[in-house]
Amino acid sequence: MEKKVYVGIDLGGTKILAVLLDERGKKLHQAETATNASEGADAVIERMIALIREGLEPEHRLKSIGVATAGTLNAEEGIVAMASNLRWNQVPLGKKLRQAFGVPVSLENDANAAAYGEWAAGAGKGTKNCVYVTVSTGIGTGIVSAGKLIRGRDSSAGELGHITLDWNGPRCACGNVGCVELYASGTSIGRSAQRLAADRPEEAERLLSLAGNSPITSRHVAEAAAAGDALSLGVLKEAGRALGTGLVSLIHMMNPEVIVLGGGASSIGEPLLRPMRETIDDVGIPSMVAGVRIVSPQLGKEAGAIGAALLVANA
Amino acid sequence: MEKKVYVGIDLGGTKILAVLLDERGKKLHQAETATNASEGADAVIERMIALIREGLEPEHRLKSIGVATAGTLNAEEGIVAMASNLRWNQVPLGKKLRQAFGVPVSLENDANAAAYGEWAAGAGKGTKNCVYVTVSTGIGTGIVSAGKLIRGRDSSAGELGHITLDWNGPRCACGNVGCVELYASGTSIGRSAQRLAADRPEEAERLLSLAGNSPITSRHVAEAAAAGDALSLGVLKEAGRALGTGLVSLIHMMNPEVIVLGGGASSIGEPLLRPMRETIDDVGIPSMVAGVRIVSPQLGKEAGAIGAALLVANA
Repeated sequence: MEKKVYVGIDLGGTKILAVLLDERGKKLHQAETATNASEGADAVIERMIALIREGLEPEHRLKSIGVATAGTLNAEEGIVAMASNLRWNQVPLGKKLRQAFGVPVSLENDANAAAYGEWAAGAGKGTKNCVYVTVSTGIGTGIVSAGKLIRGRDSSAGELGHITLDWNGPRCACGNVGCVELYASGTSIGRSAQRLAADRPEEAERLLSLAGNSPITSRHVAEAAAAGDALSLGVLKEAGRALGTGLVSLIHMMNPEVIVLGGGASSIGEPLLRPMRETIDDVGIPSMVAGVRIVSPQLGKEAGAIGAALLVANA
Repeated sequence: MEKKVYVGIDLGGTKILAVLLDERGKKLHQAETATNASEGADAVIERMIALIREGLEPEHRLKSIGVATAGTLNAEEGIVAMASNLRWNQVPLGKKLRQAFGVPVSLENDANAAAYGEWAAGAGKGTKNCVYVTVSTGIGTGIVSAGKLIRGRDSSAGELGHITLDWNGPRCACGNVGCVELYASGTSIGRSAQRLAADRPEEAERLLSLAGNSPITSRHVAEAAAAGDALSLGVLKEAGRALGTGLVSLIHMMNPEVIVLGGGASSIGEPLLRPMRETIDDVGIPSMVAGVRIVSPQLGKEAGAIGAALLVANA
């Protein structure tokens, strides 16, 4: 018997991940391959097409393809306008996939797609208002409000990493001042520790020996903090307070029921998350903060692909 | 011939404003009366019912009633949970109006209703993503994204006034630290000027003489600035920079096409708006800021009532 299926792709700088879902959102198949972006856009798209074909069975009737990717998108035209991780410029990805499969294709920002995936099929399932925040090198965010993904004018909505925590603070690479990313990202954690270690090397022996000849990263800080290192705990406490303050701005703006918090932040654990939660409880408007659950993601690395598939399937 | 009509009410602490719209959103009638909240909720509701009846003609067929009001709402149940300006506590306004007219009744936060009104019928007409910001004593905000009002879990979304500008700043009455309202509201403008005048009375002669024996307010500051007073211009420049930084956080979160900026801010004019615009151009992500128009409201004091009518009519 014929079976309707929906493809979702997460197109990353290093790998392409594809999922195949049935009509009820159940995963039937999953596969991945290297992106090899250096071979050029056409080769990457050919590999993507082969990856999709590989998962299709004779009884499958493909209904749509959703693609999650970083970069600037012209979603209406199906064009990847600029993706620096792929070195793509004005690539008509939607058109090429549509030509290959004859089904609707839709592109979505990767954080937005992951947010939608976690909301529809993961940690936010059953809620109406769900925000997804991933803290790693940078901070990515996607917002689902009343069951709809918030895209804004050009799918750029949800830049929590680039709202201001200190309006007299330093410039961010984005151009804004005192951005959340400058205080609460993995990059900022490494940088703060590096600066403190330079100022007070006698308190940074453990960190410096973990890092060896390389710059201190958030991984070193997390490892040292887990072993009780005071300087590292202090750095994470400050980053947690920054993250908590940023999340309070997010809560006050979006009034969500649940925040799905992923990325390295969850693996650093309590030294970051305790001050984050304490700050939220301390400074948030009580009635708005009271109902917010902060939870871990459930879909792992497939969140973007699943979300991309569901976004077009549910459209 | 029978004519479908839609009522919108703006229930304020001092007056009740009602509008009657036809099927195409055209205003057929408008009326207002004093709220006289001290007479109690039942009397206020009776007055509201009379105000609605007064506008209905024999050929009208009333389809719905929308009410915009301040305070905490239980919108689903049609209950005004807490409205300090009315001294209302758990008032079943929706039920009472439904009983009187036999049509669907819906309640909405007043800033949200005004935002929807300006989007649907005013300065944001024709756009898909529109943010309404009113700067007066406090800062009120409503967000329309992809043509839908963003309410969040309990209609509290859009608290731009209570997102952080300085995470090491002073406490706001809301509990948060360094809120936009502490630097960019009418109240904060008066307070800053008052503080500067106390520190440097020799530079504040004009302001102090305008205020007489009363505290300096934002009106005094605006008037003195219009006459070239340096201290007042400095206060407004700083407030404009704060407002601009807050609006950049809003732009980065919501990615709107248009910001409708109302309240006293528009009447203060260029001494506040120029530094605001300069800050937005200076610190905003260029691709996100480039497409944003900042415009004045068009519906005046009727925005909330019109928006409340259209929200339920379009639901």
